[in-house]
Formats: sequence, structure tokens, C-alpha cells
Amino acid sequence: MDRDQELALALAAQREQLERAGQAHLLRFWDELNQAERAELLGDLSGCHFPEIMSFFDRAVSVPLPIQQQQQQVDEQMEPVPKEVQGSVSRDWERLPEWKAEGLFQISENKVAVLLLAGGQGTRLGVTYPKGMYNVGLLSRKTLFQIQAERILKLQQLASEQFGHKCTIPWYIMTSSRTMESTKEFFTLNGYFGLQEGNVIFFQQGMLPAMTFDGKAILEGKSKISLAPDGNGGLYRALRNQKIVEDMEKRGIGFIHVYCVDNILVKVADPAFIGFCIKQQADCGAKVVEKTNPTEAVGVVCKVNGLYQVVEYSEITLVTAQRRNADGRLTFNAGNICNHFFTLQFLKNIVKDYEPKLRYHVAQKKIPYIDENSQQIKPDSPNGIKLEKFVFDIFQFSKKFVVFEVLREDEFSPLKNADSQNGKDTPTTARHALMSLHHRWVLNAGGHFVDENGTRIPAIPSLQELADVPIKCEISPLVSYSGEDLDKYVAGREFRPPLIIDEKGVQELTANGL
Amino acid sequence: MDRDQELALALAAQREQLERAGQAHLLRFWDELNQAERAELLGDLSGCHFPEIMSFFDRAVSVPLPIQQQQQQVDEQMEPVPKEVQGSVSRDWERLPEWKAEGLFQISENKVAVLLLAGGQGTRLGVTYPKGMYNVGLLSRKTLFQIQAERILKLQQLASEQFGHKCTIPWYIMTSSRTMESTKEFFTLNGYFGLQEGNVIFFQQGMLPAMTFDGKAILEGKSKISLAPDGNGGLYRALRNQKIVEDMEKRGIGFIHVYCVDNILVKVADPAFIGFCIKQQADCGAKVVEKTNPTEAVGVVCKVNGLYQVVEYSEITLVTAQRRNADGRLTFNAGNICNHFFTLQFLKNIVKDYEPKLRYHVAQKKIPYIDENSQQIKPDSPNGIKLEKFVFDIFQFSKKFVVFEVLREDEFSPLKNADSQNGKDTPTTARHALMSLHHRWVLNAGGHFVDENGTRIPAIPSLQELADVPIKCEISPLVSYSGEDLDKYVAGREFRPPLIIDEKGVQELTANGL
Repeated sequence: MDRDQELALALAAQREQLERAGQAHLLRFWDELNQAERAELLGDLSGCHFPEIMSFFDRAVSVPLPIQQQQQQVDEQMEPVPKEVQGSVSRDWERLPEWKAEGLFQISENKVAVLLLAGGQGTRLGVTYPKGMYNVGLLSRKTLFQIQAERILKLQQLASEQFGHKCTIPWYIMTSSRTMESTKEFFTLNGYFGLQEGNVIFFQQGMLPAMTFDGKAILEGKSKISLAPDGNGGLYRALRNQKIVEDMEKRGIGFIHVYCVDNILVKVADPAFIGFCIKQQADCGAKVVEKTNPTEAVGVVCKVNGLYQVVEYSEITLVTAQRRNADGRLTFNAGNICNHFFTLQFLKNIVKDYEPKLRYHVAQKKIPYIDENSQQIKPDSPNGIKLEKFVFDIFQFSKKFVVFEVLREDEFSPLKNADSQNGKDTPTTARHALMSLHHRWVLNAGGHFVDENGTRIPAIPSLQELADVPIKCEISPLVSYSGEDLDKYVAGREFRPPLIIDEKGVQELTANGL
Repeated sequence: MDRDQELALALAAQREQLERAGQAHLLRFWDELNQAERAELLGDLSGCHFPEIMSFFDRAVSVPLPIQQQQQQVDEQMEPVPKEVQGSVSRDWERLPEWKAEGLFQISENKVAVLLLAGGQGTRLGVTYPKGMYNVGLLSRKTLFQIQAERILKLQQLASEQFGHKCTIPWYIMTSSRTMESTKEFFTLNGYFGLQEGNVIFFQQGMLPAMTFDGKAILEGKSKISLAPDGNGGLYRALRNQKIVEDMEKRGIGFIHVYCVDNILVKVADPAFIGFCIKQQADCGAKVVEKTNPTEAVGVVCKVNGLYQVVEYSEITLVTAQRRNADGRLTFNAGNICNHFFTLQFLKNIVKDYEPKLRYHVAQKKIPYIDENSQQIKPDSPNGIKLEKFVFDIFQFSKKFVVFEVLREDEFSPLKNADSQNGKDTPTTARHALMSLHHRWVLNAGGHFVDENGTRIPAIPSLQELADVPIKCEISPLVSYSGEDLDKYVAGREFRPPLIIDEKGVQELTANGL
């Protein structure tokens, strides 16, 4: 059987399925395609299980409320997170040592895994490769992946030292068909950043076709379906399809920290967060930062109809966003930063029973397509939808849900936009956030910075000398996970920035030395 | 007597004085100067009263603590503002109507004046003209001066309407020799923006020479002394020298709102703030915003040694900046935004008795100068000092001091840096802050915005569509001072941005129409 015959057979098999699902239009250009293009299209089609996709679509579009009505419904039912399920690094600092000790103990017992959501490309950032491979211009030139890997290494070391035996934090990394290959290659090239290859487990989230409003998958080109990852909530489908939960079980994991790739300050497997959730006997937890501006574009963790969920900023009315408590704080101030805690048992229940029942969210989008006349069209207004689930959709199934508030300046600085854009969440803001944190670590450990004349620089440097802000200072995660153990390097010493402290020791770089 | 003889006489008079004050070096290049240059130098000299300047200098440098010692001293004595002297728009919203009514009543009685600190040039902003003349790129192209003038006009109108008789809010504008001429010209060219010329009173703050560490005034050029305004606290010396307090008294003013030119959101003569201060029987008050990030570069209002003052960000240690209360808030969170309330009686006491006793602050600076060999030098390290007073230096003399906390997103967005700089406090952030506020006004008055397809835009628009953020919307101060009376324009209506509401009515501009 030659290649043409193979393709003809595969086509025949697909055609029947597609006709049954009302998607025969996807073969519209078949006769014009060459062999390679036919293979490409069949490849796209083999990744789409249309009976399932059509059931997702039908359920997703079955509640077509206009936006203002949706908002009012959500608004009327929103309640803030009750005090008794909250912990806070700024209010409960006396209990922090206890929580940290518990978290570190569980790490030492090999009970803790981390799970990274890294299925997206850096499109808004203006790059075509995975965000984790981005270098924000730190002194060390480290990428997000490397920073996170080194935090895992350091935590393993801290737990091992404290409890006297080796331990491992397995790292599950969810990619997509768009990022899998380059991500794996990057880890291989970099020797897994010192982690053991067997403890870094890649898996792949699913893709779904963009659909017209009446349920037709959209062709991006003659041989190419418009496919996109199925949202970060595609996690659960992927965990099921790729038997990841089984792998966790085999390794004896009890607790999982899930997070997004783009936060340069993320405390991977944060012992305080994990310890807090465990001490509260929670099956599910969310780390949040205080939302202080009513119109900040951040989702808020709250209760709707008695169930926990994240209400996205686009779903909230201004009246609700502006509501304040007697103490002047925003009523809905638990800003979601996509840092979650799950017990393995909870994740098992989700994957097996609960999540499949959830409806997909519908996002109206402008989707480029090829029309009947073979013209490439970039529509001016939304012409179709994408189906997505969100990682927090499953909060509602938690039997004991908790919220842990942390300080924004210590733990949250996402990388979303290019520097050329509007100045929010850019490589520059990410780099500054990290250097500002490390600057504070040095001061808090008793170190000082001096300027080129040897004069001490104030703790909060002047904005008038823009060159100084922030102080250029970077501390390798291999030296300190969250500011600990720095006094032996810095106490009573004066440094002239730029300063790096890493496994080679303290290095004062001259401006030329960079 | 010809011009040369005149100059020689003036020189003789100066020389003796300069020699007595140890400043004879200022005449070092006299023999090389032409007639015009000699006149210039004598002009500079005649503005400098050296016996006074030397007494300022001697007292200012008489406490030469190194910075870390100063910090510790301040740190140890800092206490937060007590609860009982605080008011807050977010915590005390039930009392706001009462405060507003009181403020508006006093305005209607011609008891309220505003005083603008506008002695600085827009150097950091990259312009050579006064900041108030800056156009941040609003739809209307209004400058900061025009926005403030129109807010005064509107308040006069609101108070007149409510109390049934005309009233005036006199506007005192402190310029410096660098900004006086262009400021006055700008007001004249623009017909005082509709205000009566007689109710806009310009006066000029003093200049002081930059000094070497051993008390020699610095020559910037052969015929030019390095002069700078004497800080925004130069206000009090200027009020005294130019008999401004007498003018206020003649007009029957009782209360003065003092503010800086660079805050695009400033609520000039804010009735709520003025009413609050009056109801508390305060003689002095400060408007503040909550500081939420420990290392934000903002001064904090607090008590030191039992006396109220603003501790500048550069004076505070990190330990103190990071201190938090049981509720998780920063202990020192009263961020100074240079918006102050004074009774006339307090101001009179200050000007007459208290302020002259205050020491100048010493700021070490890199001051360009001309050396003995006639070379222009730009030093790399500080080579001298500037003497400054701050407007808040006199808080300590208040018998009843109060603090009024307002919302940052409603009232504070200063213009300090050019867009090309680090993204903080730029024309873009100022413009966005104003448009975001006005967007919220429209929503809160029952209006809605729709996109180019007629779909309603969520209250918090998506950051992914950068073009939409913020919604382009500007409401003239002549239409609404702080969001009031907008329902008749917008309730139940849908608008496609850009939107302007001004004295000509509601205007939807197309992108081309701009």
C-alpha cells in the first residue's frame, strides 16, 4: 500500500465521522492539497474527537446569557471568603514557623509534588517559544524555568538537611502540543538544571478546535484546523488521559502545589502554604494577594451560591468591585494568583468523578480563518468561540477549602506583556520585582548597599536617581529559598551594586563586568 | 553717570558685603565679564542676602549625623498617627455628606482659598516650562493648570447654586523666578481659564544658592550663581515677604487648601477634606493615601518625639517600613500626597513666629560649577548642598492636627517622569488615572460602554485588548467636580469610546475624529 492509498483510507475513516458530527466542511479543500498537506490535516483531525467535542460545545452554549445578566446573577450571589478559612502571612505571622515546619516535614517525607501549568506560548510577550524559557534580563540571565528548578533543588536540600535524609519533590510539567517539544529540548540542553530527569514529568494538555457560533470547527488554512489549548483547567483531562495521578500515587505523593509558569516570584512548593493547608485539614487551597484597587484586572476568590470559586474581573460589576468593609478594605479582595494546593485524594476525585461533569467556558474571539474562496480573513469582530476550562473550576467540589493571603511584593509578579506595551507585567516589572525582593533580603540580613562614592544608599532609594532603582541585586535560589541563611554572607557588610550571591559566593560586579 | 560707573558703584557695595560673608570668590571672574554679564551677576547677587543665607547654612549644617544614625534616631521615635485624629473616605463614608456640606458652606461664605505650589520646572519630565502647562494627552488636550482652574470654577458654581449667592475661591499660586513669567503669560493667554484675574494671585518663592560643604556659594558660570528654589517650604518665607497672609485676611479667608501642581486627580478645595478638618476643629490637616508596599517611595505622616511630621522615604529603615499592625496593614501607612489644610490663624502664627526658627534641610547634590581655570565641571559625586524647607515642616506647631485618608485611585496620580523613563508617574499613568476615574463615574451614574460591535464592555475591561485600557473617557470639571450630576447625561445610555462630556454636552468621538 503506498502513501496515497494510506491517506485515502484514513480519509474515508474520518469522512464518515466528520459527516456524522456535522464537520464535513473541514475536508472542503482536500482535492487541492498535496500529500504533505493532506497528512497535516489528517494529523489535526486525529487529535480531535468530534463526538466528545460536540458534546462539550452543546453543553457550553446551552446557557447563552448576555453579559450584563450574567454579571448580575453572579453579583447577587457573591459572598467574601469567611474569616475562619483564611490564613495570612501578615496577620498570622506568629503561626508561620509552625506552618513552615509542617510543610518542610512533608517535603522531607517525599509527600509533596509541584505541578506547573506551562501550556501557553509567550504570544503576548512577543515570543514564539514557551514563557518558561524567557530571560527577563536578570544579572544571571536565568530563565523562569531555571529559577523554578533551583527553588525546588534548594527546598529539597533544606528539607534533607533538617530531617537527615534525602528527599525528592517531583515536578510535573503540563505542556501543550505547541510547547512540549521545545520545553523538553530546553530541559535536556540544560541538564534539567541539576534535577534528576526521572523526577521531571512532562505531560501534555489537550487542544480543542475554535468553533463558529453554530458549532462548526474553524479552518485556519486549507490543511490546518484552528486549534488552541483547552484552558489551564485542561489540566484535569490531561491528568486523566495521561495517567499522571497514578504516577503520583506510585510515588507516594500526598499534596500537590499547582502554579502558573509566568510568576517570577513564585514560591514553588512553599512550605508555609502547604503546611497551612495541611494543618487546616484542607483538601483544596488557594494562595491570594490583597486586591486594593477596585478595577484591578484580577479574579477574586469568593463564594457564589455557597460554593467557592474565582469570579473573573470581567464578570464583576463595578458596584460589587467597589464594595468595602467597615475597615475600608475591599469586600472582595482575595486576588487569585493561580497558586493552588490539592491533596492527592481530592485530585483523584476530581479527575475521576467531578471534573468531567463541568461545562466549558465560552470565550468569544476574533478567529482568523480561510473562507470558501480560499481567502485568509482576519475578522474585526468576534466570529467564533474558544472552549476553555479553568484550573479553579473545581474549587466548588472541595469539602474543606482554605485561602492563604501572601504579600504581593514578596510573591507575585507575573510576566505577561512585552516591554513595548503598557508597562504592566513586563520583563522590566518582573526583573525589578525580583531584584527589589532580594535587595530587601540583604538589608533584612544586616547587609548594606553603598553608592559609587561609598555613601550608604537609603533602604528606599530615591526615584530621582533612576539608575539606582531598584538596587541591582540577585540571590541565587541555590543560596536562599526565601531570604533565609543570608546573614553569613552579608551581615555588617557593605556592597556596591550590582551584587550577585550564588553558589560561587558573593560577587560585586562592576558595570563593565556585565 | 554712565552704565559702567553704575556697575562699579554696585560692585563696591556688594564687594564689602561679600567679603564680610566670606563670599568674595563670587567676583573672581569680574574683570573678564562684559557689561551684560556684570549686570547679570549683580542681579543674581542682589537676590542673595548673604548674612541671612550664612545663618541658614550654619544652622543647617550644625547637626551633621551620618545617614544611618539619623535613620535610627527617627526610627526609634516614630509612632503612627493615632486613630482618633483620622478620618477616611472608605471607613467613614456615613459622615462624608456632613463633611461635604460643611466644606461647601464655607466655600459659599468666601472663607476658603486654595494655594498652589508651582515653583518647580518640569526638568525630570523633560520640559523647561512649568509643570502646570503640561498637556498629558487627554482627549481635550487640557493642561494641569486648566483642569485645576475648572475645578475651582465648578466648586464656586456648586456652592453658589446650593446657597443662593455668588462666591469666590481665591487661587494663590506660588511660582519661582524660573516659572513666574511663563506662568503668568500662560494664564493671560488663556483668559485665566474663565476665572477672574483679580482672584488669581501669583507670588514668588525665594531662591538660595547652592553651597560647597564649607559654605561657599557655587558659581555655575562666570557671571551666574547656582541658584535653586528654597524647597516647597519656601512657601512660608514667601508668604511673609510678599504679604500674602495680609491679602487673605483682607478677603476674609478662614481656611486654606495647599497642594502641589503635579497631581492630575487633585480635588482642589475638596469640600469633604475641608469640612472634615473644620468639624474636627483642626488648625492643620494632611490628606493621605494608604501606603501598601513597604518600599514605595512616599513620605509617611507620623509622630516623632510626640510631634507630627512627614518622615521621608529616604529617612526610614526597612525594619520600620515593613512593620505591620495586627490587621496586616503597614504600621506607617499614611502616605503623604502634599495636600494640606491650614486655618488662616495657624498660617499667621507660622509665618510670623514659628517657621523662621526652623532649620533648613541639607541635601547633598552633584552641582555643576566653573572651576578656577574657567572649566565647566559636572561632578560625579556630591560636591555641595542645597538648602530646602518642606511645606510639612510646620506640622509640629499644630495644636490640633488631623489626617484624612482618601483613595489613591480617586485622588492621587502625580506627574513626575517622562514616558521614556521607568513607567512610574508619567504622562501615560496620569492620563490613564484620570480616564479610569471618569470611566467609573459614568458606570456609577448608570451609563455603559460598548465596543465597536455594540457589545457591552465589562466594568473591568480585559487587559488582553490593550487598546481598550483604559476606556477613553473624559468629563470636563465644568460638568462634574467629583462624579456628581452625571445621571442626566448617562443613565441607561450606551457609549462607544472615546467619550467626552463637557459644556457642549455628550460627544462620542470616532478614532478618526481625534
